Amino acid sequence: MELLKSRSNDKIKLAVSLRESAAKRRGLDLFFLEGVRLCADAAESGTKIAASFFTGKAMDKNPAQVTEIAGKSDSSYLITEELSRFLSDTVMPQGVFCLCKTLDKVKSCNKIDSGGKYLALEKIQNPDNLGAVCRAAEAMGLTGLIVSAGCDVYNPKAQRAAMGSLLRMPIIETDDLGALLAKAAADGMLTLASTSDRVAERITDVPMDGGVICVLGNEGAGVTKETAELCRRSVTIPMRGRAESLNVAAAAAIISWEMTRGN
Amino acid sequence: MELLKSRSNDKIKLAVSLRESAAKRRGLDLFFLEGVRLCADAAESGTKIAASFFTGKAMDKNPAQVTEIAGKSDSSYLITEELSRFLSDTVMPQGVFCLCKTLDKVKSCNKIDSGGKYLALEKIQNPDNLGAVCRAAEAMGLTGLIVSAGCDVYNPKAQRAAMGSLLRMPIIETDDLGALLAKAAADGMLTLASTSDRVAERITDVPMDGGVICVLGNEGAGVTKETAELCRRSVTIPMRGRAESLNVAAAAAIISWEMTRGN
Repeated sequence: MELLKSRSNDKIKLAVSLRESAAKRRGLDLFFLEGVRLCADAAESGTKIAASFFTGKAMDKNPAQVTEIAGKSDSSYLITEELSRFLSDTVMPQGVFCLCKTLDKVKSCNKIDSGGKYLALEKIQNPDNLGAVCRAAEAMGLTGLIVSAGCDVYNPKAQRAAMGSLLRMPIIETDDLGALLAKAAADGMLTLASTSDRVAERITDVPMDGGVICVLGNEGAGVTKETAELCRRSVTIPMRGRAESLNVAAAAAIISWEMTRGN
Repeated sequence: MELLKSRSNDKIKLAVSLRESAAKRRGLDLFFLEGVRLCADAAESGTKIAASFFTGKAMDKNPAQVTEIAGKSDSSYLITEELSRFLSDTVMPQGVFCLCKTLDKVKSCNKIDSGGKYLALEKIQNPDNLGAVCRAAEAMGLTGLIVSAGCDVYNPKAQRAAMGSLLRMPIIETDDLGALLAKAAADGMLTLASTSDRVAERITDVPMDGGVICVLGNEGAGVTKETAELCRRSVTIPMRGRAESLNVAAAAAIISWEMTRGN
Protein backbone atom coordinates (compact mmCIF):
# COMPACT_ATOMS: atom_id res chain seq x y z
CA MET A 1 0.00 0.00 0.00
CA GLU A 2 1.52 3.28 -1.11
CA LEU A 3 2.25 5.76 1.70
CA LEU A 4 1.02 9.31 1.12
CA LYS A 5 2.59 12.05 3.21
CA SER A 6 1.98 15.31 1.42
CA ARG A 7 -1.02 17.59 1.36
CA SER A 8 -0.16 18.41 -2.21
CA ASN A 9 -0.55 14.82 -3.39
CA ASP A 10 -3.16 14.70 -6.16
CA LYS A 11 -5.30 12.08 -4.40
CA ILE A 12 -5.37 14.13 -1.21
CA LYS A 13 -6.22 17.31 -3.09
CA LEU A 14 -9.02 15.44 -4.86
CA ALA A 15 -10.38 14.14 -1.55
CA VAL A 16 -10.45 17.61 -0.01
CA SER A 17 -12.13 19.11 -3.06
CA LEU A 18 -14.82 16.40 -2.99
CA ARG A 19 -15.34 16.99 0.73
CA GLU A 20 -15.83 20.72 0.18
CA SER A 21 -17.52 21.19 -3.18
CA ALA A 22 -20.90 19.98 -4.38
CA ALA A 23 -20.01 21.16 -7.89
CA LYS A 24 -16.87 19.01 -7.82
CA ARG A 25 -18.90 16.00 -6.66
CA ARG A 26 -21.40 16.47 -9.46
CA GLY A 27 -18.70 17.11 -12.04
CA LEU A 28 -16.63 14.05 -11.18
CA ASP A 29 -19.45 11.72 -10.05
CA LEU A 30 -17.46 11.01 -6.90
CA PHE A 31 -18.06 11.75 -3.23
CA PHE A 32 -16.10 11.73 0.01
CA LEU A 33 -16.88 9.60 3.06
CA GLU A 34 -15.11 9.41 6.39
CA GLY A 35 -15.25 7.09 9.36
CA VAL A 36 -14.82 3.34 9.85
CA ARG A 37 -18.49 2.61 10.03
CA LEU A 38 -19.60 4.74 7.10
CA CYS A 39 -16.83 3.50 4.79
CA ALA A 40 -17.67 -0.09 5.80
CA ASP A 41 -21.34 0.65 5.07
CA ALA A 42 -20.28 1.81 1.61
CA ALA A 43 -18.34 -1.40 1.00
CA GLU A 44 -21.20 -3.58 2.29
CA SER A 45 -23.92 -1.76 0.38
CA GLY A 46 -22.16 -2.22 -2.94
CA THR A 47 -21.22 1.42 -3.40
CA LYS A 48 -18.26 1.52 -5.76
CA ILE A 49 -15.11 2.81 -4.05
CA ALA A 50 -12.53 4.53 -6.23
CA ALA A 51 -9.96 5.07 -3.49
CA SER A 52 -9.59 4.46 0.23
CA PHE A 53 -7.17 5.95 2.76
CA PHE A 54 -6.15 4.54 6.13
CA THR A 55 -3.78 5.51 8.91
CA GLY A 56 -1.60 2.76 10.36
CA LYS A 57 -3.41 3.18 13.66
CA ALA A 58 -6.80 2.71 11.99
CA MET A 59 -5.52 -0.46 10.28
CA ASP A 60 -4.38 -1.87 13.64
CA LYS A 61 -7.63 -0.96 15.34
CA ASN A 62 -10.13 -2.09 12.68
CA PRO A 63 -8.44 -4.86 10.67
CA ALA A 64 -11.66 -6.53 9.48
CA GLN A 65 -13.28 -3.30 8.26
CA VAL A 66 -10.07 -2.05 6.63
CA THR A 67 -9.66 -5.36 4.80
CA GLU A 68 -13.24 -5.20 3.55
CA ILE A 69 -13.04 -1.55 2.48
CA ALA A 70 -9.63 -1.94 0.83
CA GLY A 71 -10.80 -5.14 -0.88
CA LYS A 72 -13.65 -3.24 -2.53
CA SER A 73 -11.52 -0.22 -3.50
CA ASP A 74 -9.90 0.37 -6.87
CA SER A 75 -6.86 1.63 -4.95
CA SER A 76 -5.88 2.05 -1.31
CA TYR A 77 -3.37 4.30 0.39
CA LEU A 78 -1.67 4.51 3.73
CA ILE A 79 -1.71 8.03 5.14
CA THR A 80 0.03 9.77 8.02
CA GLU A 81 -1.84 10.91 11.14
CA GLU A 82 -1.18 14.48 10.04
CA LEU A 83 -2.90 13.85 6.68
CA SER A 84 -5.79 12.16 8.47
CA ARG A 85 -6.36 15.31 10.54
CA PHE A 86 -6.11 17.34 7.33
CA LEU A 87 -8.72 15.22 5.53
CA SER A 88 -11.07 14.95 8.48
CA ASP A 89 -14.11 17.06 9.08
CA THR A 90 -14.47 15.78 12.64
CA VAL A 91 -12.88 16.51 15.99
CA MET A 92 -11.75 12.92 16.50
CA PRO A 93 -10.67 11.53 13.11
CA GLN A 94 -10.81 7.75 12.86
CA GLY A 95 -8.22 7.64 10.09
CA VAL A 96 -10.48 5.95 7.51
CA PHE A 97 -11.67 7.75 4.37
CA CYS A 98 -12.90 6.81 0.95
CA LEU A 99 -13.86 8.32 -2.37
CA CYS A 100 -16.98 6.66 -3.73
CA LYS A 101 -18.63 6.70 -7.11
CA THR A 102 -22.03 8.34 -7.11
CA LEU A 103 -24.78 5.84 -7.50
CA ASP A 104 -26.02 4.98 -10.92
CA LYS A 105 -29.33 6.73 -10.57
CA VAL A 106 -31.48 7.18 -13.61
CA LYS A 107 -32.92 10.66 -13.46
CA SER A 108 -36.47 9.63 -14.14
CA CYS A 109 -39.37 8.18 -12.28
CA ASN A 110 -39.23 4.85 -14.07
CA LYS A 111 -37.91 3.15 -10.98
CA ILE A 112 -40.75 4.12 -8.68
CA ASP A 113 -42.77 1.16 -7.43
CA SER A 114 -46.38 2.34 -7.66
CA GLY A 115 -47.28 0.25 -4.61
CA GLY A 116 -44.41 1.63 -2.52
CA LYS A 117 -44.10 4.30 0.14
CA TYR A 118 -41.82 7.26 -0.55
CA LEU A 119 -40.85 10.58 0.92
CA ALA A 120 -40.05 13.22 -1.68
CA LEU A 121 -37.73 15.98 -0.48
CA GLU A 122 -38.04 19.37 -2.13
CA LYS A 123 -34.97 21.58 -1.72
CA ILE A 124 -34.00 20.40 1.75
CA GLN A 125 -30.75 22.22 2.21
CA ASN A 126 -29.45 21.41 5.65
CA PRO A 127 -27.32 18.27 5.23
CA ASP A 128 -27.95 17.13 8.80
CA ASN A 129 -31.68 17.25 8.13
CA LEU A 130 -31.32 15.43 4.84
CA GLY A 131 -29.36 12.65 6.55
CA ALA A 132 -31.73 12.42 9.50
CA VAL A 133 -34.76 12.24 7.19
CA CYS A 134 -33.22 9.35 5.26
CA ARG A 135 -32.25 7.55 8.46
CA ALA A 136 -35.82 7.81 9.77
CA ALA A 137 -37.33 6.75 6.43
CA GLU A 138 -35.12 3.67 6.33
CA ALA A 139 -35.88 2.75 9.94
CA MET A 140 -39.60 2.99 9.24
CA GLY A 141 -39.24 0.72 6.23
CA LEU A 142 -40.10 3.14 3.45
CA THR A 143 -39.45 1.96 -0.10
CA GLY A 144 -37.21 4.85 -1.10
CA LEU A 145 -36.48 8.54 -1.14
CA ILE A 146 -37.15 10.96 -3.98
CA VAL A 147 -34.97 14.06 -3.99
CA SER A 148 -35.37 17.21 -6.02
CA ALA A 149 -32.50 19.20 -7.48
CA GLY A 150 -30.93 21.12 -4.61
CA CYS A 151 -30.90 18.19 -2.17
CA ASP A 152 -27.25 17.19 -2.07
CA VAL A 153 -27.31 13.57 -0.91
CA TYR A 154 -23.55 13.28 -1.44
CA ASN A 155 -22.71 16.01 1.06
CA PRO A 156 -20.38 14.41 3.64
CA LYS A 157 -22.41 15.81 6.54
CA ALA A 158 -25.63 14.38 5.08
CA GLN A 159 -23.92 11.01 4.64
CA ARG A 160 -22.71 11.10 8.25
CA ALA A 161 -26.12 12.06 9.67
CA ALA A 162 -27.73 9.32 7.55
CA MET A 163 -25.64 6.63 9.28
CA GLY A 164 -25.27 4.71 6.03
CA SER A 165 -28.94 4.89 5.07
CA LEU A 166 -28.22 7.18 2.10
CA LEU A 167 -25.98 4.39 0.77
CA ARG A 168 -28.58 1.67 1.30
CA MET A 169 -31.93 3.31 0.49
CA PRO A 170 -33.12 3.55 -3.11
CA ILE A 171 -32.73 7.25 -3.97
CA ILE A 172 -34.52 8.68 -6.98
CA GLU A 173 -33.11 12.03 -8.11
CA THR A 174 -35.31 14.24 -10.23
CA ASP A 175 -34.98 17.60 -11.93
CA ASP A 176 -38.72 17.76 -12.40
CA LEU A 177 -40.57 16.79 -9.24
CA GLY A 178 -43.85 18.04 -10.69
CA ALA A 179 -43.71 15.66 -13.66
CA LEU A 180 -42.73 12.80 -11.39
CA LEU A 181 -45.70 13.48 -9.10
CA ALA A 182 -48.10 13.76 -12.03
CA LYS A 183 -46.92 10.45 -13.45
CA ALA A 184 -47.14 8.78 -10.03
CA ALA A 185 -50.71 10.03 -9.58
CA ALA A 186 -51.59 8.74 -13.06
CA ASP A 187 -50.19 5.37 -11.97
CA GLY A 188 -52.64 5.35 -9.07
CA MET A 189 -50.36 6.56 -6.29
CA LEU A 190 -51.60 8.89 -3.58
CA THR A 191 -49.52 12.08 -3.66
CA LEU A 192 -49.41 14.20 -0.54
CA ALA A 193 -47.90 17.59 0.25
CA SER A 194 -47.04 18.03 3.91
CA THR A 195 -47.69 21.42 5.42
CA SER A 196 -47.71 23.06 8.83
CA ASP A 197 -50.98 24.73 7.86
CA ARG A 198 -53.34 23.64 10.62
CA VAL A 199 -56.41 23.67 8.38
CA ALA A 200 -54.97 20.93 6.15
CA GLU A 201 -56.20 17.38 6.48
CA ARG A 202 -54.76 15.47 9.46
CA ILE A 203 -52.24 12.85 8.45
CA THR A 204 -54.12 10.35 10.63
CA ASP A 205 -57.23 10.79 8.46
CA VAL A 206 -55.50 9.74 5.23
CA PRO A 207 -55.66 6.07 4.23
CA MET A 208 -52.15 4.83 3.54
CA ASP A 209 -52.80 1.33 2.25
CA GLY A 210 -51.61 1.74 -1.34
CA GLY A 211 -48.65 3.46 -2.92
CA VAL A 212 -47.95 6.87 -1.39
CA ILE A 213 -45.52 9.72 -2.05
CA CYS A 214 -45.43 12.44 0.60
CA VAL A 215 -43.53 15.63 -0.24
CA LEU A 216 -41.57 17.41 2.50
CA GLY A 217 -40.51 20.95 1.79
CA ASN A 218 -37.60 23.21 2.46
CA GLU A 219 -36.93 24.03 6.14
CA GLY A 220 -37.99 27.64 5.85
CA ALA A 221 -40.41 27.80 2.95
CA GLY A 222 -42.16 24.43 3.07
CA VAL A 223 -43.41 22.66 -0.04
CA THR A 224 -43.65 25.14 -2.93
CA LYS A 225 -47.11 26.21 -4.00
CA GLU A 226 -46.58 24.76 -7.49
CA THR A 227 -45.66 21.35 -6.09
CA ALA A 228 -48.44 21.37 -3.48
CA GLU A 229 -50.98 22.05 -6.23
CA LEU A 230 -49.78 19.00 -8.13
CA CYS A 231 -50.39 16.75 -5.12
CA ARG A 232 -53.76 15.15 -4.56
CA ARG A 233 -54.02 16.17 -0.91
CA SER A 234 -52.31 18.42 1.62
CA VAL A 235 -51.71 16.86 5.02
CA THR A 236 -50.50 18.10 8.37
CA ILE A 237 -49.31 16.63 11.64
CA PRO A 238 -51.75 18.01 14.19
CA MET A 239 -49.85 20.01 16.80
CA ARG A 240 -50.99 20.98 20.22
CA GLY A 241 -48.27 23.10 21.73
CA ARG A 242 -47.05 26.58 20.94
CA ALA A 243 -44.30 25.36 18.64
CA GLU A 244 -45.08 26.58 15.16
CA SER A 245 -43.69 23.60 13.38
CA LEU A 246 -41.62 20.51 13.75
CA ASN A 247 -38.08 20.22 12.54
CA VAL A 248 -38.23 18.54 9.10
CA ALA A 249 -36.45 15.45 10.45
CA ALA A 250 -39.01 15.07 13.25
CA ALA A 251 -41.85 15.60 10.77
CA ALA A 252 -40.29 13.00 8.45
CA ALA A 253 -40.08 10.51 11.31
CA ILE A 254 -43.76 10.92 12.21
CA ILE A 255 -44.95 10.90 8.60
CA SER A 256 -42.89 7.79 7.77
CA TRP A 257 -44.25 6.16 10.91
CA GLU A 258 -47.84 6.90 9.89
CA MET A 259 -47.21 5.78 6.29
CA THR A 260 -46.14 2.34 7.47
CA ARG A 261 -48.04 2.12 10.77
CA GLY A 262 -50.75 -0.23 9.54
CA ASN A 263 -48.37 -2.55 7.68
CA MET B 1 -28.56 53.10 26.34
CA GLU B 2 -24.87 52.76 27.13
CA LEU B 3 -22.63 51.99 24.13
CA LEU B 4 -20.16 49.15 24.58
CA LYS B 5 -17.21 49.02 22.22
CA SER B 6 -14.57 46.90 23.85
CA ARG B 7 -14.13 43.15 24.01
CA SER B 8 -12.65 43.61 27.45
CA ASN B 9 -15.81 45.17 28.86
CA ASP B 10 -16.99 43.11 31.84
CA LYS B 11 -20.47 42.54 30.42
CA ILE B 12 -19.05 41.30 27.13
CA LYS B 13 -16.57 39.04 28.88
CA LEU B 14 -19.43 37.66 30.99
CA ALA B 15 -21.56 37.02 27.88
CA VAL B 16 -18.74 35.11 26.16
CA SER B 17 -18.03 33.04 29.24
CA LEU B 18 -21.73 32.12 29.55
CA ARG B 19 -21.84 31.20 25.87
CA GLU B 20 -18.83 28.91 26.24
CA SER B 21 -18.98 27.37 29.68
CA ALA B 22 -21.62 25.13 31.22
CA ALA B 23 -19.81 25.44 34.58
CA LYS B 24 -20.07 29.22 34.38
CA ARG B 25 -23.79 28.99 33.57
CA ARG B 26 -24.39 26.72 36.53
CA GLY B 27 -22.23 28.81 38.84
CA LEU B 28 -23.89 32.12 38.00
CA ASP B 29 -27.41 30.87 37.25
CA LEU B 30 -27.31 32.79 33.99
CA PHE B 31 -27.34 31.74 30.35
CA PHE B 32 -26.66 33.29 26.96
CA LEU B 33 -29.16 33.59 24.10
CA GLU B 34 -28.73 35.06 20.67
CA GLY B 35 -31.09 36.01 17.86
CA VAL B 36 -34.11 38.28 17.55
CA ARG B 37 -36.63 35.50 17.72
CA LEU B 38 -35.10 33.58 20.60
CA CYS B 39 -34.53 36.69 22.75
CA ALA B 40 -38.13 37.78 22.03
CA ASP B 41 -39.29 34.28 23.01
CA ALA B 42 -37.43 34.73 26.31
CA ALA B 43 -39.13 38.08 26.94
CA GLU B 44 -42.56 36.69 26.01
CA SER B 45 -42.23 33.50 28.04
CA GLY B 46 -41.41 35.39 31.23
CA THR B 47 -37.77 34.34 31.39
CA LYS B 48 -35.95 36.92 33.49
CA ILE B 49 -33.42 38.88 31.45
CA ALA B 50 -30.42 40.30 33.29
CA ALA B 51 -28.92 42.11 30.33
CA SER B 52 -29.60 42.58 26.64
CA PHE B 53 -27.34 43.78 23.83
CA PHE B 54 -28.33 45.25 20.48
CA THR B 55 -26.56 46.67 17.46
CA GLY B 56 -27.95 49.89 16.01
CA LYS B 57 -28.82 47.99 12.84
CA ALA B 58 -30.79 45.40 14.81
CA MET B 59 -32.71 48.18 16.59
CA ASP B 60 -33.64 49.74 13.24
CA LYS B 61 -34.66 46.43 11.77
CA ASN B 62 -36.65 44.98 14.69
CA PRO B 63 -37.98 47.92 16.70
CA ALA B 64 -40.94 46.06 18.25
CA GLN B 65 -38.88 43.09 19.41
CA VAL B 66 -36.02 45.24 20.69
CA THR B 67 -38.47 47.38 22.69
CA GLU B 68 -40.03 44.28 24.21
CA ILE B 69 -36.71 42.62 25.03
CA ALA B 70 -35.15 45.81 26.43
CA GLY B 71 -38.32 46.52 28.41
CA LYS B 72 -38.00 43.17 30.16
CA SER B 73 -34.23 43.48 30.77
CA ASP B 74 -32.61 44.71 33.96
CA SER B 75 -30.17 46.60 31.74
CA SER B 76 -29.65 47.07 28.00
CA TYR B 77 -26.61 47.99 25.98
CA LEU B 78 -25.88 49.21 22.48
CA ILE B 79 -23.01 47.30 20.87
CA THR B 80 -20.91 47.78 17.76
CA GLU B 81 -21.16 45.47 14.74
CA GLU B 82 -17.68 44.25 15.58
CA LEU B 83 -18.77 43.23 19.09
CA SER B 84 -21.85 41.54 17.64
CA ARG B 85 -19.64 39.37 15.47
CA PHE B 86 -17.47 38.67 18.51
CA LEU B 87 -20.45 37.60 20.63
CA SER B 88 -22.15 35.60 17.91
CA ASP B 89 -21.94 31.87 17.45
CA THR B 90 -23.54 32.08 14.00
CA VAL B 91 -22.44 32.93 10.50
CA MET B 92 -24.99 35.71 10.11
CA PRO B 93 -25.30 37.49 13.48
CA GLN B 94 -28.60 39.33 13.96
CA GLY B 95 -27.11 41.73 16.52
CA VAL B 96 -29.45 40.76 19.37
CA PHE B 97 -28.23 38.95 22.49
CA CYS B 98 -29.34 38.52 26.05
CA LEU B 99 -28.21 37.05 29.34
CA CYS B 100 -31.09 35.31 31.07
CA LYS B 101 -31.57 34.00 34.56
CA THR B 102 -31.89 30.24 34.73
CA LEU B 103 -35.39 29.22 35.54
CA ASP B 104 -36.40 28.74 39.11
CA LYS B 105 -36.62 25.00 38.96
CA VAL B 106 -37.04 23.05 42.16
CA LYS B 107 -34.82 20.02 41.90
CA SER B 108 -37.46 17.55 42.95
CA CYS B 109 -40.37 15.76 41.43
CA ASN B 110 -42.96 17.73 43.37
CA LYS B 111 -44.03 19.58 40.29
CA ILE B 112 -44.86 16.54 38.20
CA ASP B 113 -48.54 16.27 37.31
CA SER B 114 -49.34 12.59 37.81
CA GLY B 115 -51.87 12.73 34.98
CA GLY B 116 -49.44 14.38 32.57
CA LYS B 117 -47.26 13.14 29.73
CA TYR B 118 -43.50 13.60 30.03
CA LEU B 119 -40.33 12.65 28.28
CA ALA B 120 -37.40 12.11 30.65
CA LEU B 121 -33.97 12.61 29.09
CA GLU B 122 -31.08 10.69 30.55
CA LYS B 123 -27.66 12.16 29.75
CA ILE B 124 -28.50 13.43 26.28
CA GLN B 125 -25.32 15.26 25.42
CA ASN B 126 -25.70 16.63 21.93
CA PRO B 127 -27.26 20.09 22.34
CA ASP B 128 -28.91 19.95 18.90
CA ASN B 129 -30.63 16.72 19.90
CA LEU B 130 -31.70 18.14 23.25
CA GLY B 131 -33.24 21.16 21.54
CA ALA B 132 -34.92 19.10 18.81
CA VAL B 133 -36.40 16.71 21.40
CA CYS B 134 -37.91 19.61 23.35
CA ARG B 135 -39.26 21.21 20.16
CA ALA B 136 -40.99 17.95 19.18
CA ALA B 137 -42.33 17.38 22.70
CA GLU B 138 -43.84 20.86 22.78
CA ALA B 139 -45.34 20.50 19.30
CA MET B 140 -46.97 17.22 20.32
CA GLY B 141 -48.45 18.85 23.41
CA LEU B 142 -46.54 16.99 26.12
CA THR B 143 -46.88 18.34 29.66
CA GLY B 144 -43.17 18.81 30.29
CA LEU B 145 -39.64 17.54 30.06
CA ILE B 146 -37.63 15.87 32.81
CA VAL B 147 -33.86 16.14 32.43
CA SER B 148 -31.18 14.27 34.31
CA ALA B 149 -27.89 15.77 35.39
CA GLY B 150 -25.72 15.98 32.28
CA CYS B 151 -28.45 17.41 30.03
CA ASP B 152 -27.45 21.05 29.65
CA VAL B 153 -30.69 22.79 28.71
CA TYR B 154 -28.97 26.20 28.94
CA ASN B 155 -26.47 25.40 26.21
CA PRO B 156 -26.89 28.10 23.53
CA LYS B 157 -26.99 25.49 20.74
CA ALA B 158 -29.72 23.54 22.55
CA GLN B 159 -31.70 26.75 23.04
CA ARG B 160 -31.34 27.57 19.35
CA ALA B 161 -32.40 24.11 18.16
CA ALA B 162 -35.35 24.22 20.57
CA MET B 163 -36.75 27.31 18.81
CA GLY B 164 -37.90 28.77 22.13
CA SER B 165 -39.53 25.58 23.40
CA LEU B 166 -36.92 25.16 26.17
CA LEU B 167 -38.04 28.57 27.45
CA ARG B 168 -41.74 27.72 27.30
CA MET B 169 -41.96 24.05 28.31
CA PRO B 170 -42.01 23.08 31.99
CA ILE B 171 -38.57 21.56 32.59
CA ILE B 172 -37.95 19.44 35.67
CA GLU B 173 -34.27 18.97 36.47
CA THR B 174 -33.30 16.06 38.65
CA ASP B 175 -30.08 14.71 40.12
CA ASP B 176 -31.81 11.43 40.93
CA LEU B 177 -33.88 10.20 38.01
CA GLY B 178 -34.33 6.81 39.68
CA ALA B 179 -36.00 8.32 42.76
CA LEU B 180 -38.18 10.51 40.58
CA LEU B 181 -39.33 7.51 38.53
CA ALA B 182 -40.02 5.45 41.65
CA LYS B 183 -42.13 8.23 43.16
CA ALA B 184 -43.99 8.74 39.87
CA ALA B 185 -44.78 5.01 39.66
CA ALA B 186 -45.99 5.10 43.30
CA ASP B 187 -48.27 7.99 42.27
CA GLY B 188 -49.81 5.76 39.63
CA MET B 189 -47.88 6.94 36.59
CA LEU B 190 -46.79 4.54 33.86
CA THR B 191 -43.00 4.68 33.58
CA LEU B 192 -41.42 3.53 30.33
CA ALA B 193 -37.83 3.04 29.22
CA SER B 194 -37.37 3.39 25.48
CA THR B 195 -34.94 1.00 23.84
CA SER B 196 -33.88 -0.03 20.36
CA ASP B 197 -34.02 -3.65 21.55
CA ARG B 198 -36.41 -5.25 19.09
CA VAL B 199 -37.73 -7.78 21.60
CA ALA B 200 -39.13 -5.03 23.84
CA GLU B 201 -42.84 -4.26 23.82
CA ARG B 202 -44.01 -2.20 20.83
CA ILE B 203 -44.90 1.36 21.75
CA THR B 204 -48.19 0.94 19.89
CA ASP B 205 -49.18 -1.84 22.31
CA VAL B 206 -48.89 0.33 25.43
CA PRO B 207 -52.02 2.14 26.64
CA MET B 208 -51.20 5.82 27.07
CA ASP B 209 -54.43 7.13 28.60
CA GLY B 210 -53.12 8.13 32.05
CA GLY B 211 -49.97 9.85 33.26
CA VAL B 212 -46.86 8.59 31.47
CA ILE B 213 -43.13 9.24 31.72
CA CYS B 214 -41.01 7.79 28.92
CA VAL B 215 -37.24 7.81 29.41
CA LEU B 216 -34.99 8.44 26.40
CA GLY B 217 -31.34 7.58 26.81
CA ASN B 218 -28.00 8.87 25.74
CA GLU B 219 -27.32 8.86 21.99
CA GLY B 220 -24.72 6.10 22.17
CA ALA B 221 -25.53 4.09 25.25
CA GLY B 222 -29.32 4.32 25.47
CA VAL B 223 -31.18 4.29 28.78
CA THR B 224 -28.90 2.98 31.55
CA LYS B 225 -29.64 -0.50 32.88
CA GLU B 226 -30.26 0.88 36.38
CA THR B 227 -32.85 3.35 35.09
CA ALA B 228 -34.51 0.83 32.76
CA GLU B 229 -34.94 -1.57 35.68
CA LEU B 230 -36.76 1.13 37.64
CA CYS B 231 -39.29 1.61 34.82
CA ARG B 232 -42.43 -0.48 34.68
CA ARG B 233 -42.06 -1.41 31.02
CA SER B 234 -39.50 -1.21 28.22
CA VAL B 235 -40.86 -0.07 24.88
CA THR B 236 -39.51 0.14 21.36
CA ILE B 237 -40.47 1.76 18.10
CA PRO B 238 -40.77 -1.17 15.71
CA MET B 239 -38.33 -0.72 12.84
CA ARG B 240 -38.41 -2.38 9.49
CA GLY B 241 -35.35 -1.21 7.65
CA ARG B 242 -31.68 -1.92 8.13
CA ALA B 243 -31.10 1.19 10.23
CA GLU B 244 -30.16 0.07 13.71
CA SER B 245 -31.80 2.91 15.49
CA LEU B 246 -33.44 6.25 15.07
CA ASN B 247 -31.77 9.50 15.96
CA VAL B 248 -32.95 10.40 19.47
CA ALA B 249 -34.82 13.45 18.14
CA ALA B 250 -36.72 11.30 15.62
CA ALA B 251 -37.47 8.73 18.31
CA ALA B 252 -38.68 11.51 20.62
CA ALA B 253 -40.98 12.83 17.90
CA ILE B 254 -42.59 9.43 17.32
CA ILE B 255 -42.87 8.59 21.03
CA SER B 256 -44.40 12.01 21.83
CA TRP B 257 -46.79 11.52 18.92
CA GLU B 258 -47.86 8.12 20.24
CA MET B 259 -48.18 9.42 23.82
CA THR B 260 -50.69 12.05 22.73
CA ARG B 261 -52.15 10.36 19.63
CA GLY B 262 -55.42 9.32 21.23
CA ASN B 263 -56.00 12.65 23.00
